[in-house]
Parts: sequence; structure tokens; C-alpha cells
Amino acid sequence: MTQTDAAISYARAHRDAFLEDLKGILRIPSISTLPEYEPDMRRAAEWLVDRLKGLGFDRVDVLPTKRHPVVYGEYLKAGADAPTILVYGHYDVQPVDPLDLWKSDPFDPRVRGDNLYARGASDMKGQMIAHIKAVESLVRTTGLPVNLKYMIEGEEEIGSPSLADFIVEHEELLAADVCLNTDAGILAPDVPSIAYALRGLAYFEIRVQGPRGDLHSGVFGGAVDNPAQVLCELVAGMRDEHGRVTWPGFYDHVRPLTEEERAELAKLPQQEDWWLEQTGAPALRGEEGYTALERATARPTLDVNGLLSGFTGEGAKTVLPAKAMVKISTRLVPDQRPEQVYESLRAYLEQHVPPTVTWELEYIAGCLPSVLARDSRAVQAASQALQAVWGKPPLLTRQGGSVPVVGIIKDKLGVDSLLLGFGLPDDNLHAPNEKLHLPNFFRGIETYIRFMREIASLWA
Amino acid sequence: MTQTDAAISYARAHRDAFLEDLKGILRIPSISTLPEYEPDMRRAAEWLVDRLKGLGFDRVDVLPTKRHPVVYGEYLKAGADAPTILVYGHYDVQPVDPLDLWKSDPFDPRVRGDNLYARGASDMKGQMIAHIKAVESLVRTTGLPVNLKYMIEGEEEIGSPSLADFIVEHEELLAADVCLNTDAGILAPDVPSIAYALRGLAYFEIRVQGPRGDLHSGVFGGAVDNPAQVLCELVAGMRDEHGRVTWPGFYDHVRPLTEEERAELAKLPQQEDWWLEQTGAPALRGEEGYTALERATARPTLDVNGLLSGFTGEGAKTVLPAKAMVKISTRLVPDQRPEQVYESLRAYLEQHVPPTVTWELEYIAGCLPSVLARDSRAVQAASQALQAVWGKPPLLTRQGGSVPVVGIIKDKLGVDSLLLGFGLPDDNLHAPNEKLHLPNFFRGIETYIRFMREIASLWA
Repeated sequence: MTQTDAAISYARAHRDAFLEDLKGILRIPSISTLPEYEPDMRRAAEWLVDRLKGLGFDRVDVLPTKRHPVVYGEYLKAGADAPTILVYGHYDVQPVDPLDLWKSDPFDPRVRGDNLYARGASDMKGQMIAHIKAVESLVRTTGLPVNLKYMIEGEEEIGSPSLADFIVEHEELLAADVCLNTDAGILAPDVPSIAYALRGLAYFEIRVQGPRGDLHSGVFGGAVDNPAQVLCELVAGMRDEHGRVTWPGFYDHVRPLTEEERAELAKLPQQEDWWLEQTGAPALRGEEGYTALERATARPTLDVNGLLSGFTGEGAKTVLPAKAMVKISTRLVPDQRPEQVYESLRAYLEQHVPPTVTWELEYIAGCLPSVLARDSRAVQAASQALQAVWGKPPLLTRQGGSVPVVGIIKDKLGVDSLLLGFGLPDDNLHAPNEKLHLPNFFRGIETYIRFMREIASLWA
Repeated sequence: MTQTDAAISYARAHRDAFLEDLKGILRIPSISTLPEYEPDMRRAAEWLVDRLKGLGFDRVDVLPTKRHPVVYGEYLKAGADAPTILVYGHYDVQPVDPLDLWKSDPFDPRVRGDNLYARGASDMKGQMIAHIKAVESLVRTTGLPVNLKYMIEGEEEIGSPSLADFIVEHEELLAADVCLNTDAGILAPDVPSIAYALRGLAYFEIRVQGPRGDLHSGVFGGAVDNPAQVLCELVAGMRDEHGRVTWPGFYDHVRPLTEEERAELAKLPQQEDWWLEQTGAPALRGEEGYTALERATARPTLDVNGLLSGFTGEGAKTVLPAKAMVKISTRLVPDQRPEQVYESLRAYLEQHVPPTVTWELEYIAGCLPSVLARDSRAVQAASQALQAVWGKPPLLTRQGGSVPVVGIIKDKLGVDSLLLGFGLPDDNLHAPNEKLHLPNFFRGIETYIRFMREIASLWA
């Protein structure tokens, strides 16, 4: 029996106990957004501390932030030659209302069929406990072959307001070779996948103003420029006839897609028809020369997220609006940075806003893109682990969306993230009757065991 | 003493009585929008019927509509060779709230200084009674030299919902050479003016939809086209680099401005600085080759009145909106028609909407433009009347706005309107402490006397 087999055997022998332990933390209503659950947040953090201490971690702490603390656990016994993995997770959950739509109490976990129903089962106590149980399976058998640093926050469901400051404050403590983000999922129970790249974000609001107040469009229309029309012209000018963003320098830092990666993306199931079926859009359009999947995951894009001006009620009001507003965001790919994109947009506006309006540009939010090389040891180890457990090679995917914590970790620690988790699209995240697919929970434990073994051996 | 002088003398001798009579109708709270004032609406209509009957009108009727009746009065004794003037007015008024801001009861008319304070004093019982008192002054002295048809509606303040049907139903009854719209004003007490042209209106809503529901802009942005951006591009394409509307055939029926009229417009006080000061706009822009005044009154224009799409609250929401909406309106000049403009916009959309969205075009409202030739007898008569009363020539103005009843009368009867009334910009229309400038009320009576005498003599 190999060392891996020993840990896998341990995990299989302890499935009932692992499930019972998961139920334990699921009984704690750690709702981060509601102040009355503050004591439960503490209990959940202490529950994790107990588990990590029980596994012989070198250091386990509840480290304060302005609101909910971070559980930090450090296991460095694998030595300086082994990889150090920063494991990200969160112990807080979403509120449960509307409660009457739940078939069973959200904090009284119940198994029905293949699923365990409870708030936080999939998002993401289930994923986190799967990893902790993988660690247990190794610690209790052959030992842990990697160094681990758990960073389990309590504010993910409220937007991780303290995380960036926390990471800056503990920069040295958190130093790692790679981050394993367990707050993740796969496409379907029989479709293992790894997200090795995430796009970044730069989100803006642009406001233009012409006259000092709204005017009567009959009396003033034609004499005075129309700020809503000016805004439309500015937005329209932001992409050219090839679907490319026209902001000066916008593409300067974009890492080109290689032919090899394009060939791999072409094998994924999300080809043109998939996007049409998923969205109901009558036709697709985007940057010329790229497939829809490439555009949505591996190319920077610009979207209007909101538009507002003048009268938007029923019927007619003949107003010439004084102001118009657009919310606009770009998705970024390596090596773009939100602050560079801000300057790029500012330059565009300086060149194109006509003298008939004044304008303001507000930077609202942003995060860095992150990418792991597909031939990196982290991606290779995860691929081999998934292949072994699922019996088929995983899909290597880039995600079009942004995960703020991934951007923060990339920005503050310079560490890229591998997203490896086992939630499913139909797990009712943030909704009533959240569930965890138990076969995936157990496969997840085995995958994490194999991942840690694989990455350790690749590192050697 | 000329015949005109006799009527003027009568008017001057009866100022106190005229004012008392005006107070009488101002005491009737004829608020058309509030059902509880229905009996007062009736009383106001009956009050007018009594006055017109007292002046020897050939026919006076309260003609029903779906809601508030029209007072119709006919005086055709001047004979077939005299002009027949359709006199438009309304006997309904706006509500009075907030009542606590009124210095005196809105339906207990009070004179303070040069002004008479009451709801409806300026809008527009004062204007209407001025005309009736001019008629009285002529009837009691030298006789009325013109044929008159009063059409005094009770729904102007609720948007004249019955008027078009009423006019169609009574088309023959209302036949006239010209319409005198007394629901009008002048720029200042010492600046007499005549509006001889009004722009028309065509008001639309355009809705585009891409995906069947809102999407996550990170997951789908770039693959799927953005309907808000498509809408911006459509709107941006609606005007060219010369500030002209690009809808096919939009200018086909536009009557060009003559050099003579341009020269006259150039003499009016609203030159470029005036528009900047009035509006606070940082700069002006519009159709090339025309002054701001020309653009706002004598050229057709396009304005965005409202824009809405996606997320418009505080902060960031990374939505790729499924839908986007624009309200857009054009101001029309002779001989444009709203239905032609609708076809013009439809043709533009058919040519330019990309296949990535579906679209709907809704025609929301419209009215015809109206213009009287400046050398027409109506304009000449009004000019001479104002010159005689004010001691200076009136300004001949075009109004940029639309008066729906003028458009309806033009459309259904083929009759153009002369706007001649004496309200002032600071009369607090639709607001607390509405007032009528009494010197203007009395000058107005004399102006209407002279206008009816002048137009009769020009007709001969």
C-alpha cells in the first residue's frame, strides 16, 4: 500500500465520523452580516481552532480584524524543501431568509438522498471541512507532506472588508508558494475541473453634467447640448468596429494567448452554441478574432453595468436632463492592473468629452487578475489528483469573473491562486435549501489528499 | 372718436366691474384633476355660459366629453365676409397644494400692489376674461367686427384627453379662419410679443433586449453583446458630426428658414450668451450653421429625455443588463408630421440595430408643429394692436416648445394658432401665490379689442 493509499483508506474508513463533524460546524449559525450572531461567529472560529490544534498544527490563532476574526493555522513540519500552501476559506455563511422556504431547519443539517441540507453546506463549510479532513487523513497516517497556512476568514459573505488590511499586516506570516482557494466548485458531479485563471476587475462611474438643472426640451432642445446624448456618444466611442476597447493604452499590458492555450480552450464544452443557449441572446458579438469563450475568460472586456438619466417612468416627460450617469466595468487579464486601466479611461475622457459638459470619473472597485501557468506544479498536481479520483482528466478552465480575495492575495502577497473545490451549480448557494452533494464531499477529501501528495512530490 | 376708441373708452370706464367679474370666476375652485371638484367645474362652465349669453351670443352650449365639458359659444353676426376666429381657452385650474405656502386663500382673490392673487388668475382665467371683456366692450359700443367661436375646455390641466375627439366630433361647428389661443404670455410687462410658430413633437421609447435575463458581467462579459452599450451606440449614431439627425428622411419635409426670418430672429434678445446664462451650460452645441435661437425654435431637434439600464444604485454591481431603454423625442417644424418622423426612426433602427439584440419602438406622444406666416393678417393685426397699446412694436417669436392643443387644432381642423396672451414668466403658474399683473390684464383687454378691429379691417 502506498502512502497515498494509506491516507485514502483512512478517509474512507472515517466517512461517517467526517460527516458527523461537518454537521457539527453546520449547526453553528455563523451569519456574518447580522450582529446578533456575533457569539456564533466566535463559536465557529473556536470550533476550527480546536480541530486544527487536534491535528498538531504548530500555531493556531484567532487573529482580530475590525469585525470578524481570521482563523490562522500553521503547519510547517514538512520542512523548507516542501511547498508552502496558503489555504483560503471562510467560516461565515449567508442569512437564511426566507426561512419558510426551507424544507428543514437551515442549522439542523439533514441528509436526504445524496445530499446534506444546511446553510453553509456547500458555501463553504463543506469544502473547508473536506480539506481539513484530507489533512487529518494524512496526519493520522503518513504525515503531511506540505507546509500549510490556513487563512479562514469570517467576512467573505459581507465582501471581505478587512482582508486586504489583514494580509498587509501579516504579510510575512502569510508568505507562501501558492494559494489553494477551496471556495470553489466544478461544473457537474461527473465533470472535474480546475480554474487556473481569473479575470480582474476595474469598475467605474462616469457622471456628466451640462446645464445646471433639468431643462424643458422644447424650450432649450437644440440650443443646449444634451448630456444623455453626450454620454451615449462617449460610451459608443469606447469600442471600435472590431469590438476592441479604444481607451489609450488599454491593451498595453495584456499577456497574449498562446496558440497552445487557444487549442485547449477550443476543446471545452462552452463553444458558441453553449453561450447562445445559456443566455438566450439572439446572437453573439465581441472582440474580433477570438471565440466567445476566449473573450469571456482570457481577453479583457468592457461592459456597461448601468445607465441613468432624466425621466424613466411611464409615458412622456419632455425633459432635457442636466445629468447622465454610466456605470462601466472592465474585466482584466494578466498583466493589466486596475489603476492602469483607470488612467487609460481618464485619458480617453480627457480626449473625448466635449466642452458642453463637465465630467467626473469615479473609481468604484477593482481587483487584479490572477493566473497560474497550466504547466505549473499546482495545476499539474490538481490535475493528477482529479484524474485519479474521477477517472478522467479535469477540464482546465479560466474564469471570466473575479474573486476579490484572489485579487487581494495576488496584489498583497504576489501569490497566484488555484481554485479547487467541489460545489455544484445547483447547490442553492445564498438561497433556501442549500445543499452539499455528499459523493462530491467524499471525492473532494480524496482529491485534496492526492493533491497535497502530488504537489509535494513535484516539488521535490 | 373712432369706433375703436369707443370700445377702448368703454373698457377703461368699466375696469372696476371687469376686475370684480374676474374675481367672481376665480372664486370657483374648478380643479379638473380632483373628482370632488366636479360640481365646481360645472359652476365654472355655467358662469361662462351666462356671460356669453349676456353678450348676445347666437349659440352657447355646454358640450359633453367623457369627463369635463367644453363651453362652446358662437357669435356669427359679423357676416360671411368677416373672419371667423376660433378662440381657445380653458376654465380648469391646477390644484393648490401646498396650501400653507399661499399668503391668501387661493380661491379668495386678493389685490396686493399691482397684482391679483388667486389660483387660475394668470393660468388662465385672467387671459380668458380679458378676451371676454374685450368682446363686451365691442358688443356694447360699436358691435363685434369678427365672427367668434369660443372653445373653452375643462381638461387642459390634465392634458386635454378629450379635446382631439371633441374636435373631430364637432369639426364643422369649429371651422374657422384662424385660432386665437389666449393661454399665452409675454416675456416681461414692457416687452410685448407674439408667438407665431410652435414646434411639434414626436416622443418615443426604444427598448432593446439581448440575453433573456440579467447576466454576471464577469462570466458572460465579452461573449455576449451588452444591450446598454448597443443602445448607446444607436443613440450616438442618431446625430452626425454636423449635429444633424441621421434618421433617413428626417429633414425631408422641413420648411427652410428664409434669410428674412433669420435676420429678424437675430434681432431678438436670446443670443448665444443668453442661453449660456439661462442654463448654466458650459458651452453650446447643436446643428451647424444655425444660431442657438434658430436651433431651439425654428429647426427640428432630437433630445434624449431618459436613459435606463442595469444597476443604478450606489456602488458596484457587476451585471450585464438584459435590457436597456431610452426615451427620445424630436421637436418638429413645419411641415414635418409625427407619424413621418416615427417612420424615419423606424427606418434608422431597421438599418442599425445589430442582430445581438431584439428591439421595440413605441410611439408615446406627438403633436404637429404650427406656424402662421409673419405677414398673415392674424400676425399683422396682433402686431398693430400690441404696438398701439404698448407704444412699441412687439417681438415676433417662435416657441421651441409644443402646445398640444395647437397641434390638435392644426391636425384636426387644419387651422393655425396665434398665441396672444399676457401672462408673465413670474406669475407662479402651477405654484402657490399665482398672480395676475393687473396693468397687463387691462392692457390685454385693449389689445384684444384692437386685434379684433384690426383683423376685421385687414380681412375686408
